[in-house]
Amino acid sequence: MATPRLDSLERSLQRHLPPEEFAEVRRLLYGEAVSPLDLPSVAVSAAAKSRFELKGYRFGAELEQLRQPRIVRVGLVQNKIPLPTEAPVAEQKTALHKRIEEIVEVAAMCGVNVVCFQEAWTMPFAFCTREKLPWTEFAESAEDGPTTRFCQELAKKHNMVVVSPVLERDFAHGETLWNTAVVISNSGVVLGKSRKNHIPRIGDFNESTYYMEGDRGHPVFQTQFGKIAVNICFGRHHPLNWLLYSLNGAEIIFNPSATIGKLSESMWPIEARNAAIANHCFTCAINRVGTEIYPNAFTSGDGGEAHHDLGYFYGSSYVAAPDGSRTPELSHTQDGLLVAEMDLNLCRQIGDQWNFKMTGRYEMYAKELAAAVQPNFVPNIIKE
Amino acid sequence: MATPRLDSLERSLQRHLPPEEFAEVRRLLYGEAVSPLDLPSVAVSAAAKSRFELKGYRFGAELEQLRQPRIVRVGLVQNKIPLPTEAPVAEQKTALHKRIEEIVEVAAMCGVNVVCFQEAWTMPFAFCTREKLPWTEFAESAEDGPTTRFCQELAKKHNMVVVSPVLERDFAHGETLWNTAVVISNSGVVLGKSRKNHIPRIGDFNESTYYMEGDRGHPVFQTQFGKIAVNICFGRHHPLNWLLYSLNGAEIIFNPSATIGKLSESMWPIEARNAAIANHCFTCAINRVGTEIYPNAFTSGDGGEAHHDLGYFYGSSYVAAPDGSRTPELSHTQDGLLVAEMDLNLCRQIGDQWNFKMTGRYEMYAKELAAAVQPNFVPNIIKE
Repeated sequence: MATPRLDSLERSLQRHLPPEEFAEVRRLLYGEAVSPLDLPSVAVSAAAKSRFELKGYRFGAELEQLRQPRIVRVGLVQNKIPLPTEAPVAEQKTALHKRIEEIVEVAAMCGVNVVCFQEAWTMPFAFCTREKLPWTEFAESAEDGPTTRFCQELAKKHNMVVVSPVLERDFAHGETLWNTAVVISNSGVVLGKSRKNHIPRIGDFNESTYYMEGDRGHPVFQTQFGKIAVNICFGRHHPLNWLLYSLNGAEIIFNPSATIGKLSESMWPIEARNAAIANHCFTCAINRVGTEIYPNAFTSGDGGEAHHDLGYFYGSSYVAAPDGSRTPELSHTQDGLLVAEMDLNLCRQIGDQWNFKMTGRYEMYAKELAAAVQPNFVPNIIKE
Repeated sequence: MATPRLDSLERSLQRHLPPEEFAEVRRLLYGEAVSPLDLPSVAVSAAAKSRFELKGYRFGAELEQLRQPRIVRVGLVQNKIPLPTEAPVAEQKTALHKRIEEIVEVAAMCGVNVVCFQEAWTMPFAFCTREKLPWTEFAESAEDGPTTRFCQELAKKHNMVVVSPVLERDFAHGETLWNTAVVISNSGVVLGKSRKNHIPRIGDFNESTYYMEGDRGHPVFQTQFGKIAVNICFGRHHPLNWLLYSLNGAEIIFNPSATIGKLSESMWPIEARNAAIANHCFTCAINRVGTEIYPNAFTSGDGGEAHHDLGYFYGSSYVAAPDGSRTPELSHTQDGLLVAEMDLNLCRQIGDQWNFKMTGRYEMYAKELAAAVQPNFVPNIIKE
């Protein structure tokens, strides 16, 4: 069973490079240094006791005359499944609720205002099996399923916006399944939901076997702590998906994901960060950790032997800012909570500096895209 | 005068990290390792004699049954201006032609099929001055200016496609200036031109003072060595610009640029590489090197004192592949030629694996973009 060979890229560099050279390498790789966030010792002890990594960083912004700083703390949660995939469905879900409750307690101690969990956080990422039962039993109503009710309690208790990505069973529409993030206000009210717009057909990610592309466009949720959106997993490969959340006003875009080392590890630091730069917003990339073992062997469409796991999820959750800077990543192997404090005023400040929206020429692109999907489209190719 | 503190990120890592750890760090940062290319010793000596860095790398692809490998070698050229900016215009241009001729000779020895120079390569990047003369005298006809004729000779002599980004004076349209790349076939024929679609209004890059946004859409040039396109400089910040070149069929997109350390250095490794991933194509990011000193002091719109330079151009040219892998960068300080061999079959192979075009939902985005530019557009914001 393959496992990550490094637990932290940043720690590896820091250990071996002379301090001055490390500073310059870090600047080239990560942009302007983010400051570490001073987290309360009670939170640090609680995280240690519950055996998960806790890291905090702070992004600043200039002071303005007419706007106060708009300081927000977000929490990114990455975790393994606590029980084996053969455990009864209800027990697995309860164990996940319990684990998340523990981590959210610590997030609350750290003053987190908006927390986001990983993609389909209430279940193993079982789509590799192509089996329907028992995995589809993990699906729930987004509006009033047990996980949403659980998150509503968390939200009220901690005055925290909760982004809860689950496998949704849509009872109002023929019990269709969707890959959905439920957004719950800090008041406990379900603000709404955002569905995964792009579905992978790659390797073991047989997700199109289970659900279809989202039909809700690109909603943005106005919360007390800023305007947020959720670009689920495979949507991070699609620059247009990020753009439309941004054009609808998102200041923070979460990207709850489940992706494995062999497939995407070198793309992971690139895509969400590129989106933060291109759209003058913060992006939060979250990936699960660990290796999930399934009772029945499956093949991977690569001619190889049947096997029981998908490979390792490499964690590495991080936050990227509109100025191109980013936090170091969470562990590649351990559960973790990443707390990032940001001043949302940075979005407009960077936007006014770089003007990507103003120079975006969206009208031209709307026309060119509309033409490109026509059956009689002729690509603009110039030949000798 | 600020200068880069590191000449090569990769060499710094290689020097300090234990070999096994370096291999893993490199995989995380750069994707699957690219092989060094065995370059002829005559080329290596010539480069050393002419004092420029010469590096070569190779991207592979799977063998297919019905298509032969489509092996192409591209050459990326980065250089300083050889003469001071006060030298007579004609002398500066001649010195640049001479320098490029030298480098292209070596590219030919290395079997380069398509060479691309940096943005506005025939001049200092003088737009920071906001002065018109003498800088606008560097502008030339794209169709039959002296630089185009010079490049036609190079193309014929070396059987090489030449991408020549210049300041264009458009004699057929009121002597308008444009920022244009001329694409010259290996036969010596001018295939056509591609204009910079997005113009910066940031810092000292006062380019909108000199020319306007390109009016030619997203042409792709069918050459003997594959379908190529040119996304000039600031266009690399716009994911849609890359996308439309790709939708028109580009397999290699060049990004001739001129950008400085303070502004963009941490974004540089992200954007062109993200575009290679998102569009299943190769991208070639080229930046000039050195610091260009102007006779008259100018201010930078940042409240600072008037000064004579824009800061350092950090070179760091590189090639990224559709699988997310990339070459190390050229020097941050020295002239250089990066030769990259690629099998263009990789584009379709990665496309069939990841399916970003198939899962792109461009029809939805065409509609959403068309709506977003309407005067009465109401962003999709959900409130409690």
